[in-house]
Amino acid sequence: MTFSTKSSNKVAGGQLTKYAFTSSALGSLETQINVFVPSSASSSHKVPVLYYLSGLTCTEDNAAQKGGFFNAAEAAQIALVFPDTSPRGAGVDGEDESYDFGTGAGFYLNATKQPWNKCYNMYNYIVDELPNKIASSDLPIDTSRASIFGHSMGGHGALTLYLKNRSAYRSASAFSPICNPTACPWGKKAFEGYLASGLEEGKQYDATLLLDQADGQPDILIDSGTADDFYKQGQLLPENFEKVAKNKGFNNVSVRLQDGYDHSYYFISTFAEDHIKFHAKLLSA
Amino acid sequence: MTFSTKSSNKVAGGQLTKYAFTSSALGSLETQINVFVPSSASSSHKVPVLYYLSGLTCTEDNAAQKGGFFNAAEAAQIALVFPDTSPRGAGVDGEDESYDFGTGAGFYLNATKQPWNKCYNMYNYIVDELPNKIASSDLPIDTSRASIFGHSMGGHGALTLYLKNRSAYRSASAFSPICNPTACPWGKKAFEGYLASGLEEGKQYDATLLLDQADGQPDILIDSGTADDFYKQGQLLPENFEKVAKNKGFNNVSVRLQDGYDHSYYFISTFAEDHIKFHAKLLSA
Repeated sequence: MTFSTKSSNKVAGGQLTKYAFTSSALGSLETQINVFVPSSASSSHKVPVLYYLSGLTCTEDNAAQKGGFFNAAEAAQIALVFPDTSPRGAGVDGEDESYDFGTGAGFYLNATKQPWNKCYNMYNYIVDELPNKIASSDLPIDTSRASIFGHSMGGHGALTLYLKNRSAYRSASAFSPICNPTACPWGKKAFEGYLASGLEEGKQYDATLLLDQADGQPDILIDSGTADDFYKQGQLLPENFEKVAKNKGFNNVSVRLQDGYDHSYYFISTFAEDHIKFHAKLLSA
Repeated sequence: MTFSTKSSNKVAGGQLTKYAFTSSALGSLETQINVFVPSSASSSHKVPVLYYLSGLTCTEDNAAQKGGFFNAAEAAQIALVFPDTSPRGAGVDGEDESYDFGTGAGFYLNATKQPWNKCYNMYNYIVDELPNKIASSDLPIDTSRASIFGHSMGGHGALTLYLKNRSAYRSASAFSPICNPTACPWGKKAFEGYLASGLEEGKQYDATLLLDQADGQPDILIDSGTADDFYKQGQLLPENFEKVAKNKGFNNVSVRLQDGYDHSYYFISTFAEDHIKFHAKLLSA
């Protein structure tokens, strides 16, 4: 058995189920995911999937409970998968000391510095292990039609995983993403803490730098609020990402600064339907 | 100053603000509310208001964060007001001992038994004090155009407050409401605990009994899930309410049993837009 079921709730006509399983990428720790399956999905009619990566301090639950995604996902008949934001209980010294490093703050990278490298491999977990687990499960999900989105640190994750794996994902979108982590305090702390070669090694996980190396026409939607304190503090830097998109002539990259919105789920829920529709168009093509 | 502002978030084009103030109905304790004001509202263009009463254990935050009401309220241009579910810190012996009595469980009645009667007067608070506070504030809300809805214990509150104050509210709706509290364990415990004459006195707060005394054509919408454990345990009894509605020929009372849904906010968020639209039609008439 791949997944063990922890709970299940009908929502928006579909079914949201929480599963637990042992992850090899996360050092054989147990991890949990929430999976929304829309009403039409069945073994003979698999549906595309949209992965949602949450931000600092979150678990697999926050966006499921507060994001407001399900009515739109049911309308579009796409599955949603909400993973956790880090391994839990890795037992690394100091992993619970700060909100922006360690537990709840895996940054969607593979750690190369000891002792973090044993369990903090969220990149491999999201890109490889999780889709493989889903594909080999009974879930009526076609993992070959996949897109990815997220919020804040999870927006960083969505943008970088997409840009590094263009054939695995059709599109990426993000609410209030960390767009240029090698140039902001959150990113510097994460890269210096998790990576043996620090900031230099972190360049491979920087969405703005990756966009500058991208080919073709990436499909990306970003919303960020002008009243977001982290935006004001220079943690997000969407303007750097947008500048590269313009220089490169990426016409399918849209960076929208939304007047008066902050970093909260109230912002996410406002534009939730927009993002689902953006991905659904590409996932159903 | 009537209200002091605790926080404010832009959502769905409008603004959600948390206020604190001292309530005389609640024994001069401080209480908090969340208020959503849609984008078109102004002092010269006041909007109607829909009160949302939460269920057991909730505060003014749960439904604001998880209910999924704001996009629909903005589309309909109606204000939403989320009060707390009881006084907080009344200092009554035993008020924090159980989830279904005391703190978080005010049951939208006026207590007549000592020592509860000093602070546990949620009925007067919601029906009189709160609308008066809003009307005398700077909020661009027209309290003469009001409706009321809620969940579980708050569904009981919405139905009873509406049926007892037909001229104050244009309509009532409820998710998984306690429909016949004199006949269920939650209601019996509340009435025997808060009311000097117990269950007999509680009859004035029983929606099914009140409906049987109602005149005209009450406008009521109820959704309740068939997979709701509290429904299965006989805490909700929507069938009793529906039977009276049919006997009385109340054609604008709709009781919908929704297949497979439980008692959670996932259920509420699924039908949130439906309920907003139901009230908006009557509030804009």
